[in-house]
Amino acid sequence: MGSTYGKIFNISTFGESHGKAIGVVIDGCPAGVKFNEEFIQNELDKRKPGQSRITTQRKEADSFQVLSGVFEGHTTGTPIALVIFNEDQRSKDYGHIADKFRPSHADYTYSAKYGNRDYRGGGRSSARETAARVAAGAIAKEILASVGIEISAYVNQVGKLKLDKSYQELDLSQTYSNAVRCPDATMAEEMFNYIDETRKKGDSIGGVITCVAKGVPAGWGEPVFDKLHAELGKAMLSINAVKGFDYGSGFDGTELYGSEHNDAFYTDQDGKVKTKTNHAGGILGGISSGEDIYFRVAFKPTATIMKDQDSVNEAGDAVTVSGKGRHDPCVLPRAVPIVEAMTALVLVDFFLRSKADKV
Amino acid sequence: MGSTYGKIFNISTFGESHGKAIGVVIDGCPAGVKFNEEFIQNELDKRKPGQSRITTQRKEADSFQVLSGVFEGHTTGTPIALVIFNEDQRSKDYGHIADKFRPSHADYTYSAKYGNRDYRGGGRSSARETAARVAAGAIAKEILASVGIEISAYVNQVGKLKLDKSYQELDLSQTYSNAVRCPDATMAEEMFNYIDETRKKGDSIGGVITCVAKGVPAGWGEPVFDKLHAELGKAMLSINAVKGFDYGSGFDGTELYGSEHNDAFYTDQDGKVKTKTNHAGGILGGISSGEDIYFRVAFKPTATIMKDQDSVNEAGDAVTVSGKGRHDPCVLPRAVPIVEAMTALVLVDFFLRSKADKV
Amino acid sequence: MGSTYGKIFNISTFGESHGKAIGVVIDGCPAGVKFNEEFIQNELDKRKPGQSRITTQRKEADSFQVLSGVFEGHTTGTPIALVIFNEDQRSKDYGHIADKFRPSHADYTYSAKYGNRDYRGGGRSSARETAARVAAGAIAKEILASVGIEISAYVNQVGKLKLDKSYQELDLSQTYSNAVRCPDATMAEEMFNYIDETRKKGDSIGGVITCVAKGVPAGWGEPVFDKLHAELGKAMLSINAVKGFDYGSGFDGTELYGSEHNDAFYTDQDGKVKTKTNHAGGILGGISSGEDIYFRVAFKPTATIMKDQDSVNEAGDAVTVSGKGRHDPCVLPRAVPIVEAMTALVLVDFFLRSKADKV
Amino acid sequence: MGSTYGKIFNISTFGESHGKAIGVVIDGCPAGVKFNEEFIQNELDKRKPGQSRITTQRKEADSFQVLSGVFEGHTTGTPIALVIFNEDQRSKDYGHIADKFRPSHADYTYSAKYGNRDYRGGGRSSARETAARVAAGAIAKEILASVGIEISAYVNQVGKLKLDKSYQELDLSQTYSNAVRCPDATMAEEMFNYIDETRKKGDSIGGVITCVAKGVPAGWGEPVFDKLHAELGKAMLSINAVKGFDYGSGFDGTELYGSEHNDAFYTDQDGKVKTKTNHAGGILGGISSGEDIYFRVAFKPTATIMKDQDSVNEAGDAVTVSGKGRHDPCVLPRAVPIVEAMTALVLVDFFLRSKADKV
Repeated sequence: MGSTYGKIFNISTFGESHGKAIGVVIDGCPAGVKFNEEFIQNELDKRKPGQSRITTQRKEADSFQVLSGVFEGHTTGTPIALVIFNEDQRSKDYGHIADKFRPSHADYTYSAKYGNRDYRGGGRSSARETAARVAAGAIAKEILASVGIEISAYVNQVGKLKLDKSYQELDLSQTYSNAVRCPDATMAEEMFNYIDETRKKGDSIGGVITCVAKGVPAGWGEPVFDKLHAELGKAMLSINAVKGFDYGSGFDGTELYGSEHNDAFYTDQDGKVKTKTNHAGGILGGISSGEDIYFRVAFKPTATIMKDQDSVNEAGDAVTVSGKGRHDPCVLPRAVPIVEAMTALVLVDFFLRSKADKV
Repeated sequence: MGSTYGKIFNISTFGESHGKAIGVVIDGCPAGVKFNEEFIQNELDKRKPGQSRITTQRKEADSFQVLSGVFEGHTTGTPIALVIFNEDQRSKDYGHIADKFRPSHADYTYSAKYGNRDYRGGGRSSARETAARVAAGAIAKEILASVGIEISAYVNQVGKLKLDKSYQELDLSQTYSNAVRCPDATMAEEMFNYIDETRKKGDSIGGVITCVAKGVPAGWGEPVFDKLHAELGKAMLSINAVKGFDYGSGFDGTELYGSEHNDAFYTDQDGKVKTKTNHAGGILGGISSGEDIYFRVAFKPTATIMKDQDSVNEAGDAVTVSGKGRHDPCVLPRAVPIVEAMTALVLVDFFLRSKADKV
Repeated sequence: MGSTYGKIFNISTFGESHGKAIGVVIDGCPAGVKFNEEFIQNELDKRKPGQSRITTQRKEADSFQVLSGVFEGHTTGTPIALVIFNEDQRSKDYGHIADKFRPSHADYTYSAKYGNRDYRGGGRSSARETAARVAAGAIAKEILASVGIEISAYVNQVGKLKLDKSYQELDLSQTYSNAVRCPDATMAEEMFNYIDETRKKGDSIGGVITCVAKGVPAGWGEPVFDKLHAELGKAMLSINAVKGFDYGSGFDGTELYGSEHNDAFYTDQDGKVKTKTNHAGGILGGISSGEDIYFRVAFKPTATIMKDQDSVNEAGDAVTVSGKGRHDPCVLPRAVPIVEAMTALVLVDFFLRSKADKV
Repeated sequence: MGSTYGKIFNISTFGESHGKAIGVVIDGCPAGVKFNEEFIQNELDKRKPGQSRITTQRKEADSFQVLSGVFEGHTTGTPIALVIFNEDQRSKDYGHIADKFRPSHADYTYSAKYGNRDYRGGGRSSARETAARVAAGAIAKEILASVGIEISAYVNQVGKLKLDKSYQELDLSQTYSNAVRCPDATMAEEMFNYIDETRKKGDSIGGVITCVAKGVPAGWGEPVFDKLHAELGKAMLSINAVKGFDYGSGFDGTELYGSEHNDAFYTDQDGKVKTKTNHAGGILGGISSGEDIYFRVAFKPTATIMKDQDSVNEAGDAVTVSGKGRHDPCVLPRAVPIVEAMTALVLVDFFLRSKADKV
């Protein structure tokens, strides 16, 4: 019972990796939003498999259908149902792991929790579900864009390869110009080669995505539990393979003194309250400050590898999980649009919640 | 509207730093839980101010009253209201910052959001609110203890001082034996001195808390959004001054290959499915695996420092925020019981939610 | 943002009368429930249009597809998506009312609320949406049946024709044996003729449905707001055309003295606590008592009639809404399975919630 | 876990009849609302016991304290905690029923559900809890008044005594001028005498309250489940002793033809869309139409009577529940402000929700 997210802009996703379809119902999207099918498809295309040789070769067009909630090109305020029928199901690929627990996958824990488990391709635990989030996130992005908010994520680290530049030093419009989704061309090439070598070895590798949201006005976020960064953290951690989240100065900031870390306020020439530095990451006390919001998301190496591994089966017997099938040697490139989508879903919900702040 | 947490074990906290009282209403605590006032008070005492010279000298007994939900020593299943009346309010301490935005505090963002702001001691944004969480968390701990779960947090890092041992190498029963709440006596002393020097300089410092939950059975957590680690992350990030969260291998794990990172399953002598390593941090696909759950929580340096700082006031004019009043030079020691409490609140909610997993 | 229902067994319905499809996502259905497609279809068939000459002649097979959440004949604990594609859309039927507000329909209020409105057949406000509820309700019924609960609704009144018998005097197995859904054959015939005459006059008529739930154990319901009868009331009032709800002695009981109305407790031969009378309708203080739960649901006459009516259009000009198209002269017969479905959805949610009542 | 109500203006009530205190936490009240303590107390005074000889003689000043959420006379947007300490607890009054199930009270069902039960005065099931609702409702009323909404409830029926006038024929400003809370002076006197005679006989009697909300703009309510009348129904049914709810034409409307029942639209001289009749009760399709909202609430006779009654105890043995203690022979007079408060709580929540309807 955890497949819904959002208090007002409320999404419910459904679907398994190799079931009939995946999709999402959005209950609480305001009426009158221009519905841009092309933009949604474009977002889905950024996430879809088979885009380069460093992503899984599963073939899915990921084209979606709108079942409800849209009329004459605009949202009507009623639930929007979007569905993507699965095409390349190839369930036969999974017969060999039907009763085996793949290491570091969710097979065992789903089994422990539910008993009854759709083992094909990870079933519900597959990252395939995130296509539904990207579709919903695209609508959220459109609403946010209409109030001047832009969200940009990019790959900041792959394995030990780290981009040694802050987001301000990068041209974020270049992120989607390469298969890795790193806005720095030189580093993108290095990362590509590194991932490709990892792939050839039948192995996988982790990394870090950085995300920036510009244009968020001061005042969004709902302390004390639904702090803006707490919901961003939850949303990011809900993405497959994510192991960590920090914002602003994050883990690095723990080594600083307060006198170094505090962001001094000043008033700019337009009379707007600003801060000289932004260790806060655009969020103070769980509420946006009007400065850029930025955060990092840590991804573990893909659990699926092309090597034999020791494991057990449902009966508890020792078995070998052999490395075959299709997989992403590094989930980061395809995760970039997912991070953006989840960010948009969090922000749009706080945008709508903020409307009730004052009488 | 974000002061409630939990789907079944639902808490609503209230209260400002220098208002009449703070407290919590728990709606959804099961009936029949032994109500141990002494244990709750003991937990509150771990968090209360004035415990040593490295914590704020504000005087608060933090003794609580039970207003409802308990009868003849047990919970009745009806809402439990706990209240702590504020004693040492000293609002006059705050006249000098009534219309000033203290750097890296939430004064400005609360003002931007709500207009009307209780400026005394940070009002609602004060960490004083967390006493209510600790009280509620104590009840959650009691329920969890009854099913064999033990939660232990400790200070792992202060500034650049890092404990270079895993939790398995430590005697966690020693955590509360010192003022810093670090279970390693040597490191605890170093940290104490470091914090004390920082205090003398009128400055503050950040750090990292590690938390371990032992005994959680396989099967808790609700994918795809309410994953166990996603809720833990949200809960930790909702604590004042927290800037980051990771679990298991976390950010460090991003540098590993899948073949290094994957945790191989085996069956132990009791027929229980176990993993040889635990990079997963006890959580796979958002569901507990039965292994130890462990995670890290990053805290920024306290925003209040005893130095003059540049800022602006409500009118936008440049002002100086002078360093006076009382503060914690390092929030970590007092945050240890808060981290434990929030962990307990997350786990107890998933425990109750898990009861509806299967017919 | 009001298209979801249920705290644990949570449903989200979507779809418009003449859109591409209607459907439902169930998040929170326990794993391991036998998934009986035939039973679901059978329930849908009871609600579908075109069953007799006293119901609308719209042609819809109302056959559903399962998109997710079911594997090898059982639920998996993950979201279950069911979808019914609309067949007989005939949008052209609605061109004549595109900008007119049909009297006692929701055209005007949807327009006032959302601006952007799908006018075809009432769009989201059409009772077509209730097919999704019936499908979800069928699954709820299966779960409840497995713990011995049976839900039976029937038509008790049509216009001034009232069945002067309590539910105990009726053979509820006969309800679906006739087109009216009244278990008393004589009254069913009278009602049928009355509705048919009303239809011939181009008019419509209201009525009352009674519903009985047998086998609900003592202890379900969540005071003080989510009382069992309060949720039943909400659920019934959420059905199209419903104007009132009462349970047990209901409105009639207001005329009684306490000494007449109170239900005396006794212990039966099996040691079970019972009441001699059941004015309470099986619910005391918002919690089931173990006695039969029974209640009444009042339906207004269908707003669509085959007569010309005065109204206004979007511009505010006086217009005539002419009586054409297809409609149900009396919604009661087709509402019987809807009342049962909503009852099941309320009960299954309280069943699952009750699992967390005690430690 | 059912003691919270409201999606945005979210209240959590707590407290038992003879516990230390009752109270409410409001999470989601907008900032900047003028906080009128006198008005809140005045509303509480309308509900408090001991106002005349036809109400219970329990002595409670019902004076409240504000613990949080208010600063310098206005709400701050943070949780507002209001508490009323119980004064006249007289727990000894209840020793004689400690293990007995009083007929038509919630003793048995609370016992069945929770095991552990505070038997003193009904504990949580006592109507004393509604004082907390009235306090929260007073704040809701203030917000609604600021947008031109007025809520008026009154006693329409006591036993068989029915006021044969519509609300339009009454001067609703006279409701609180008498102890019965019936705006018609002649009927009020009849009702008073009838209740007083019932009291002298040691018996109790039920009745009906009508409530009217004027000034609600078109567009409030959230189909398909959270329809305006569905939430009103739930809210009313959540009040102690309520057995039924209908709105607009209600149960009576079931006997009408559509051609009689439909409300024709017209445009008034100000260009506002209005209806000639209002069988709809101001709500179409679950959304307010701009017309007056009106509904009826049915109350059963008070379960407590001054007569001996047959019952059983916790052990299942036959016992006599003797009639002693204090009680209301008719709950209607004191329920009038409760009905108004719950109406205000429903409306204010939809007001805040409606802010997110459109972009």
